[in-house]
Amino acid sequence: MISSNPVRGTRDILPQEMVLRDQLEAMILKRYRSQGFNRIETPVMENLELLLGSDGGENLKMLFSIIKRGEKLNLTPEASVSDLCDLGLRFDLTLPLSRFYANNQAELEMPFKAIQIGNVFRAERPQKGRFRSFKQCDIDIIGDPSVNAEIELIDTTAKALMDMGFCGFTVKINHRKLLSEVIRKLGFSEEAVGTVCITLDKLDKIGSEGVEKELLSKDYDHAMVSGLTKAVTEISTDNLSDWVDDELVIGELTEVIDAVKRLSKNNFTIEFDFSLIRGMGYYTGLIFEVSYGPYGYSIAGGGRYDNMIGKYCKTSVPAVGFSIGFERIVGILQEENNQLTHSQKKMVLFYEAAQGSFDQVIAAGEQWQTQGYGVNLVAMKKKFGKQISAYSEKGYAGFAVFGRDEALKMF
Amino acid sequence: MISSNPVRGTRDILPQEMVLRDQLEAMILKRYRSQGFNRIETPVMENLELLLGSDGGENLKMLFSIIKRGEKLNLTPEASVSDLCDLGLRFDLTLPLSRFYANNQAELEMPFKAIQIGNVFRAERPQKGRFRSFKQCDIDIIGDPSVNAEIELIDTTAKALMDMGFCGFTVKINHRKLLSEVIRKLGFSEEAVGTVCITLDKLDKIGSEGVEKELLSKDYDHAMVSGLTKAVTEISTDNLSDWVDDELVIGELTEVIDAVKRLSKNNFTIEFDFSLIRGMGYYTGLIFEVSYGPYGYSIAGGGRYDNMIGKYCKTSVPAVGFSIGFERIVGILQEENNQLTHSQKKMVLFYEAAQGSFDQVIAAGEQWQTQGYGVNLVAMKKKFGKQISAYSEKGYAGFAVFGRDEALKMF
Repeated sequence: MISSNPVRGTRDILPQEMVLRDQLEAMILKRYRSQGFNRIETPVMENLELLLGSDGGENLKMLFSIIKRGEKLNLTPEASVSDLCDLGLRFDLTLPLSRFYANNQAELEMPFKAIQIGNVFRAERPQKGRFRSFKQCDIDIIGDPSVNAEIELIDTTAKALMDMGFCGFTVKINHRKLLSEVIRKLGFSEEAVGTVCITLDKLDKIGSEGVEKELLSKDYDHAMVSGLTKAVTEISTDNLSDWVDDELVIGELTEVIDAVKRLSKNNFTIEFDFSLIRGMGYYTGLIFEVSYGPYGYSIAGGGRYDNMIGKYCKTSVPAVGFSIGFERIVGILQEENNQLTHSQKKMVLFYEAAQGSFDQVIAAGEQWQTQGYGVNLVAMKKKFGKQISAYSEKGYAGFAVFGRDEALKMF
Repeated sequence: MISSNPVRGTRDILPQEMVLRDQLEAMILKRYRSQGFNRIETPVMENLELLLGSDGGENLKMLFSIIKRGEKLNLTPEASVSDLCDLGLRFDLTLPLSRFYANNQAELEMPFKAIQIGNVFRAERPQKGRFRSFKQCDIDIIGDPSVNAEIELIDTTAKALMDMGFCGFTVKINHRKLLSEVIRKLGFSEEAVGTVCITLDKLDKIGSEGVEKELLSKDYDHAMVSGLTKAVTEISTDNLSDWVDDELVIGELTEVIDAVKRLSKNNFTIEFDFSLIRGMGYYTGLIFEVSYGPYGYSIAGGGRYDNMIGKYCKTSVPAVGFSIGFERIVGILQEENNQLTHSQKKMVLFYEAAQGSFDQVIAAGEQWQTQGYGVNLVAMKKKFGKQISAYSEKGYAGFAVFGRDEALKMF
């Protein structure tokens, strides 16, 4: 018999979780739209050339590539994936958005404030809570070079999180240019900045000792390495000018932090975090992430990527994005057993199988629908008592019996 | 520069269409849930073995197959797609549902009434109105062998269509067993039934003459062929017993037609159509389709497939499904310029770029949000008049200017 398991690293979603997911998605979408953003959609498939030519970093190693159709494949031992394949599944929503903007620019408002809600695909090693197909909810502002865009994105994302019942989360913020200036000033070369950041990104997991050990193993100078861990501990918004000269960078960081602090009304925190790196190669300015409670992963993340859209347009266009990790939100709310809003009341209308015309049963169900119930029409079984209790455990409010006892009996 | 076009045969969806699509999807989902169905979701990728082992018919020639990752490919000239690939994109929602049911059976209500809304993928030759990635909205009842399942699906689908403003559509219905009995009684062999059906399916396009011509060119007997076209013209619900002996088949057809007629309250029509075939190989009983107005394609279709789920479970399980072609619905409503419900009112709140802290602009926007507006915060440009008229054409209700003239001026 053919296996009925879903593809490795993916999963089936059952009815109860779908109710929660649909509610959350509707909340997020409502908040995004009310703040002036517009939803768009792009296909899950993109041309392989576009995907491979992007700054996708590690994600390019995790591509799902689609084999060419309708042409003879060049099946030689030297053939590479790009010889055999022409399409791939998107690994994020930012690259498709950049392509979308270039393709549809003439018909879009400027600045363009985009909503994207959809699945992305990465062939990661399967592990708890990590899936190879997962949903992201992104907002992006294209065409605004000022930090107002960052402030608006953080405000909107925070409001969406609060709509879903999250409170007391922390927005961590850093600046790519600050990172690279500090690292260079410590004596690292321009080329070393990337490597240093990759190690620094592991601080949460391996601690400062681990960071020092890893950098020393890469033969970086001892003084430079300990300078770095010192910087991580000491640098703060109060002493930024001791560490960097670029006043624009300092200005951007402090302006966003101050504005978001006022907007937060103490429902959440924003804090500068020099060890915040964010993996994606394409960020050029401010970067941010939301952490929540004891969970060792971020529930949202984003940043400015001013050099990406220019690859697909004739002109360079500034852009910033913020993405909510939908699967993580769902996971946390399920773990916290958080019943958001109530879903529609449901009832069972039982009928006897040989009871004449079924359209009368449907008509009887319509009466209950007008009272707000979702009505499930179910044929009675011999073991009726057992059948009733099965439904009482499935979240139904109650039941009635067609043509016999039409009063609703609550479970 | 890298092309910014979406993948051939797919398309980008712009904000205005997304508003319509989201409204329609919400309407369909609400109706389905209120009639006792439960939404589930499966991944867009399935194991290639599952896809290729299905009764997918023509769709198997249009698969998007995903190349194996992380293992050395067997790149010899003899290698087939199934040697090189391990996954594929789903071509419909019925096969994944059957797998889902087999995989999650223990946790599902019985009978299980499923909702699936999602995209499917077929590498068809691109043509107007046909896409390689398109959305379907399916309901299925698993575990009910009686025609009550068909009646419930037709009733629910018709109600969803009426919710979206469709009226006067026609539900065409036929029975696979009736088709094969009539064709065999005319003298065709058991093996010929499939071929005859493929030709008969073209009746709409090529007429009876075309059907006769094609069958004669396949060397079928002249008397048998003219008997078939005669059957198409003469067979009706009034004379079914003249054509077939199987009373169960006649009973099923007439019971569904009678019940749906009563439920329709003359808002739509149901009619027997002996030339209705439906392509998919897996149907075993009643089949149905919805046609609407002058459009030469169906807007919904489905049928009973009692032999499919058994391929993935230990036991045979009866099942029926009905699928709304979402892209066609959207296309028709756009063509008819049908404004369904009103979308959220939107306004622009302009601000001067160098006007102090941006969080005050956001706070001013919140005031308008409480009055139900979606608020787009936009920096004023020098050519303000031109900027205003650009937004007035984009469907905004009006605008205000932060800190200067805060009354809302309607467009």
